[in-house]
Amino acid sequence: MDRTNSTLKVLEAKAEKQLSWAAIAEHVGAAEVWVTTALLGQATMSPEQAAKAGEILGLDQEVAVSLTIPPFRGGAIQMPPTEPALYRLYEIIMVYGPAFKEILNEKFGDGIMSAIDYEMSIEKKEDPKGDRVIVTLNGKFLPYRKF
Amino acid sequence: MDRTNSTLKVLEAKAEKQLSWAAIAEHVGAAEVWVTTALLGQATMSPEQAAKAGEILGLDQEVAVSLTIPPFRGGAIQMPPTEPALYRLYEIIMVYGPAFKEILNEKFGDGIMSAIDYEMSIEKKEDPKGDRVIVTLNGKFLPYRKF
Amino acid sequence: MDRTNSTLKVLEAKAEKQLSWAAIAEHVGAAEVWVTTALLGQATMSPEQAAKAGEILGLDQEVAVSLTIPPFRGGAIQMPPTEPALYRLYEIIMVYGPAFKEILNEKFGDGIMSAIDYEMSIEKKEDPKGDRVIVTLNGKFLPYRKF
Amino acid sequence: MDRTNSTLKVLEAKAEKQLSWAAIAEHVGAAEVWVTTALLGQATMSPEQAAKAGEILGLDQEVAVSLTIPPFRGGAIQMPPTEPALYRLYEIIMVYGPAFKEILNEKFGDGIMSAIDYEMSIEKKEDPKGDRVIVTLNGKFLPYRKF
Amino acid sequence: MDRTNSTLKVLEAKAEKQLSWAAIAEHVGAAEVWVTTALLGQATMSPEQAAKAGEILGLDQEVAVSLTIPPFRGGAIQMPPTEPALYRLYEIIMVYGPAFKEILNEKFGDGIMSAIDYEMSIEKKEDPKGDRVIVTLNGKFLPYRKF
Amino acid sequence: MDRTNSTLKVLEAKAEKQLSWAAIAEHVGAAEVWVTTALLGQATMSPEQAAKAGEILGLDQEVAVSLTIPPFRGGAIQMPPTEPALYRLYEIIMVYGPAFKEILNEKFGDGIMSAIDYEMSIEKKEDPKGDRVIVTLNGKFLPYRKF
Amino acid sequence: MDRTNSTLKVLEAKAEKQLSWAAIAEHVGAAEVWVTTALLGQATMSPEQAAKAGEILGLDQEVAVSLTIPPFRGGAIQMPPTEPALYRLYEIIMVYGPAFKEILNEKFGDGIMSAIDYEMSIEKKEDPKGDRVIVTLNGKFLPYRKF
Amino acid sequence: MDRTNSTLKVLEAKAEKQLSWAAIAEHVGAAEVWVTTALLGQATMSPEQAAKAGEILGLDQEVAVSLTIPPFRGGAIQMPPTEPALYRLYEIIMVYGPAFKEILNEKFGDGIMSAIDYEMSIEKKEDPKGDRVIVTLNGKFLPYRKF
Amino acid sequence: MDRTNSTLKVLEAKAEKQLSWAAIAEHVGAAEVWVTTALLGQATMSPEQAAKAGEILGLDQEVAVSLTIPPFRGGAIQMPPTEPALYRLYEIIMVYGPAFKEILNEKFGDGIMSAIDYEMSIEKKEDPKGDRVIVTLNGKFLPYRKF
Amino acid sequence: MDRTNSTLKVLEAKAEKQLSWAAIAEHVGAAEVWVTTALLGQATMSPEQAAKAGEILGLDQEVAVSLTIPPFRGGAIQMPPTEPALYRLYEIIMVYGPAFKEILNEKFGDGIMSAIDYEMSIEKKEDPKGDRVIVTLNGKFLPYRKF
Repeated sequence: MDRTNSTLKVLEAKAEKQLSWAAIAEHVGAAEVWVTTALLGQATMSPEQAAKAGEILGLDQEVAVSLTIPPFRGGAIQMPPTEPALYRLYEIIMVYGPAFKEILNEKFGDGIMSAIDYEMSIEKKEDPKGDRVIVTLNGKFLPYRKF
Repeated sequence: MDRTNSTLKVLEAKAEKQLSWAAIAEHVGAAEVWVTTALLGQATMSPEQAAKAGEILGLDQEVAVSLTIPPFRGGAIQMPPTEPALYRLYEIIMVYGPAFKEILNEKFGDGIMSAIDYEMSIEKKEDPKGDRVIVTLNGKFLPYRKF
Repeated sequence: MDRTNSTLKVLEAKAEKQLSWAAIAEHVGAAEVWVTTALLGQATMSPEQAAKAGEILGLDQEVAVSLTIPPFRGGAIQMPPTEPALYRLYEIIMVYGPAFKEILNEKFGDGIMSAIDYEMSIEKKEDPKGDRVIVTLNGKFLPYRKF
Repeated sequence: MDRTNSTLKVLEAKAEKQLSWAAIAEHVGAAEVWVTTALLGQATMSPEQAAKAGEILGLDQEVAVSLTIPPFRGGAIQMPPTEPALYRLYEIIMVYGPAFKEILNEKFGDGIMSAIDYEMSIEKKEDPKGDRVIVTLNGKFLPYRKF
Repeated sequence: MDRTNSTLKVLEAKAEKQLSWAAIAEHVGAAEVWVTTALLGQATMSPEQAAKAGEILGLDQEVAVSLTIPPFRGGAIQMPPTEPALYRLYEIIMVYGPAFKEILNEKFGDGIMSAIDYEMSIEKKEDPKGDRVIVTLNGKFLPYRKF
Repeated sequence: MDRTNSTLKVLEAKAEKQLSWAAIAEHVGAAEVWVTTALLGQATMSPEQAAKAGEILGLDQEVAVSLTIPPFRGGAIQMPPTEPALYRLYEIIMVYGPAFKEILNEKFGDGIMSAIDYEMSIEKKEDPKGDRVIVTLNGKFLPYRKF
Repeated sequence: MDRTNSTLKVLEAKAEKQLSWAAIAEHVGAAEVWVTTALLGQATMSPEQAAKAGEILGLDQEVAVSLTIPPFRGGAIQMPPTEPALYRLYEIIMVYGPAFKEILNEKFGDGIMSAIDYEMSIEKKEDPKGDRVIVTLNGKFLPYRKF
Repeated sequence: MDRTNSTLKVLEAKAEKQLSWAAIAEHVGAAEVWVTTALLGQATMSPEQAAKAGEILGLDQEVAVSLTIPPFRGGAIQMPPTEPALYRLYEIIMVYGPAFKEILNEKFGDGIMSAIDYEMSIEKKEDPKGDRVIVTLNGKFLPYRKF
Repeated sequence: MDRTNSTLKVLEAKAEKQLSWAAIAEHVGAAEVWVTTALLGQATMSPEQAAKAGEILGLDQEVAVSLTIPPFRGGAIQMPPTEPALYRLYEIIMVYGPAFKEILNEKFGDGIMSAIDYEMSIEKKEDPKGDRVIVTLNGKFLPYRKF
Repeated sequence: MDRTNSTLKVLEAKAEKQLSWAAIAEHVGAAEVWVTTALLGQATMSPEQAAKAGEILGLDQEVAVSLTIPPFRGGAIQMPPTEPALYRLYEIIMVYGPAFKEILNEKFGDGIMSAIDYEMSIEKKEDPKGDRVIVTLNGKFLPYRKF
């Protein structure tokens, strides 16, 4: 079963059982962003994690197995994103990207923030003037190798 | 003087005086990411901030004035970014974007994280296994208006 | 049921029952543009609104439920739009966009008109020289946050 | 003198004389959006209007004459717009465009809202919860000719 | 029934009955280019015209009804056209477009030739050196509105 | 002198001498559309035609010579055209193109209308309901060679 | 039956009967490149040719008929071609195209090599240092019409 | 001196001295297509060839030297080509490309026609019905290596 | 059976039998990269190799035969690649490509590294600081032919 | 001095002094590919390396300093590359990329080969049947972080 179908099965099961991503993640025993990412076909679960996910969602064995195979990433959305919630992230790169690179180079030297040795969280901060979304990107700094 | 030229003047002055973005930001009295963004032509300074920036960088009056005019944003980089440090942010949208939207909708309802009522920081977290880049995105949640 | 299918069901039901968007909107109890937008898969109804829409259109429960789930917006049309009625809006951005930004900045300062805290209407103004289409865009001004 | 240069001259003169678009428009005797559009190289002034514009802005004869020549429109911005204030208009087409076409066809029949026999205004509506931008698009309905 | 399917039904019926576009157009009682355009899903027939078309082509009621609904235009071909007969028209815009605009502005003033209040014909002119295709574009001139 | 510069010289001379394209064409002794096209750098004049054009416009010898060299065509506008007067022609291909190909094949067989052995005219037809632009495309039919 | 399906039928029949393109072409009685092109849906056969092709390939009547209808050309491959054998032709245009145009203009005057009144062959020339592919393009020169 | 400038110098010298490509090629002692390609910045001359070219064209030493440096190929034209003479070659790939690959594979096996170990000629074949352009592509067949 | 389907059959069989690419390659008797490439539809097997592959994977005769037909290469992934493991290769071309060309020209003269007479390997080099991927590209140098 | 200008100065100096990349790299004391990459504006030198490079090339202090500032990478070439030597690398990704990912995942698990902690070499392997280019890519394997 390919990942696109397996993602559909996950979404159907989640809707039918009325589970939240938070509840699924807790059952699987990993971070909410990561578990959601894996179930949407963009990360690879261990057999134990896939079994846990299969258990709470009532997935077929075939679907659970597919969650353990490294996916072909990135095809789930078109770029630039048409969905406004994702476009705002894209816009942030255009507006704040030049400053990001300057400050990264100043603080760390020449290199990048890894998107592989990387984790992220999405939190809600209540605020009387309007709640705020706090997204934390946490990636290892990788200095360019000189050879 | 248009913003492209004024950005060049800022970069030349910064290089000549060997100032860091952190030092300039402290003198201007605002956050490092924001001050850098404004000096790179992607945000608008108040006259007081522009005066402070002009003071530490030794900018001409004409350059300082240009910093107070709302810029035409987003033209500083091409998309997808060719620079690896910026491409990693772009890749994060492709890989983690679907999960971001799911979790945002689950935690906040239908809407977006604003990229306008928005601030961000870039910090270094030392780690013996390799220092980590911590980027915090902090935007107001905007629920879709029903009418 | 995904939104694309649910939109098809809505359009079939509307055609079969020969209902106007205006009549549906009145029954749902919200603005014509918004109700049409939601039924075309670009906005999220409350359960009560979806029940009302399901009632007048005779939709299956499954379809009605799908109307309450935040959609992945923007995929319904390609850009630039090939349909002439939509291309004219696109052309308006190219021709009047520069003036829009200048006047927005002059009247409101640096910021944007929100497309989220936003509503719009489409009205017919009769005119002997040819009726006119009056489209009103009404969005909250969001000033850029300085930090 | 081509329109790109003539636009630059206008912007320099406006900055130097610290004139608002509203003041210039009043002097020229036409609507603010239209006068701004013409001065930004996207519409054609009559010789009288160009003379008035030249007067208040102190433009050379050569610049004033260039304002009376039909421009090659639309090249002033790239699409999709990178500037957030303009991108929001673009997003509105993607999200509300399908409903716009449905309602237009329902209210007027098969045809378009003209972008040529067209006018628009941009107004500020004060609101304690945040001022609102009111943009009114007013275009003649053009029914498709059958032949 | 959507327009893509209804176009297929039309083409099948036309092939089976070995009708020419000219014959169908004569039966429908409108111009050949327009009737062909409508049957290919790019224009809207009146109920009477659709009935006539249904009669000669032997179409189901459902197909005939679909011909009376304003279509979403322009999706039938990709641009630039890969088909040589259509690419030549595209090339004509690139080569003769600049002259077209100059002459249009000189003869009519600032404005456009409407593609909505528009009709066209395609005729064969016999010529011993090779027959010639005569395409006549006939559109209302629309002057730009000043406001 | 390359064609871009030579086009600029032509436009400057035309503006300075306040000549119409019609007057220049009459002096050169060829059709208005063709002469305009050649002077805009998209067709090749004979030495006699170039001399005539140079005479009426007062062009340098170098400019006149450049008009006799086959140009690299098609670079004068971007596609899709941003200028509304040209975009309407582009839209006509999308909307009427499928019918054009059907009728061409029906009337002439498999082949194309040449864009090389081709001429066109642009005329004004006065009409109390609004003047009409009549564009006539006249190209040799080229049947596909079978081999 | 549309051309895409009819091409599939041809390829299946060719594989099943283990026929070469050369053998099919000989049976049809036309050039190998042309017959292959027609059977791949990019040229139009006469009824006699289609009958011959149907005979040797054992095609259904419906498939044979489809070969006689002018196809919508060019959609069989994406550009730039991903297949290396076709990309090399594309690269040849980029590298040798400028010289081709210079020499064409020098030898023939202003015009093009027709791709319609055109034929081509693909031959093998044995060579001890490696066999060579000899492709001959043979198109009528079409001089630009002056009018 | 970079190749773009050196190409301009070549073209200016050729125009001034009224030399044909054929005459230059004869003086350099290599094929017309190749010499033209090299002088247009898409191939590399030996020092002797560059000296010969410099001699007949009267080029500065600096220009002649630049002709001996391997160029960065392919940037001289945009794809798809806007110039009709080059577009026809591009169209030939779309229309005849699928047949080319089929026949190449049938005659030679799996592999490509090299565009590196490659030569080509452009000849004029007089014909009372219209002269014909004969382009011969001659490339080594390269079989795919199995490993 | 087309190659896309045959690739799916291969992947299903491989998953079901829990075979590694290394094991399959050993059975087929060719290099791991090449066998994997062929089974993914980007290279052509000999009948013997296809039989071997069919044997170990338990493929239908029809699938095995399809492996011996030259494929239409390159359509398996979109460019730029969205999958991070492949994007890194793409990025390497952008960052190290200019140096690759300089050094290639310096060491070999004007020409290319063949991608046809080409082989590659992917090895793991264990390293306490993190294992390393060693990819070796080995292509014949092809000098540009002068003619 | 920005990197584009500084690259030009390097290339001019290298040409004038007739130095090879190999000789410069030896003087700088780092690998040939890396030194060439840095001098072409895609990597960052230490002050000592820049001084060495400045010494052998006779660069101004300003140029030497620019070599020590992290560049904005990737803008030196367009993608897909038009230069054949670089396009072959691009083609290799399309043809061998799917196998690369399969084998990488099989040998290393889910992750990527780093393009940052990365080095490469380009060597010449003499071969009587034609010399071979041996390119070795050597990047750290980065496993995807689970969180």
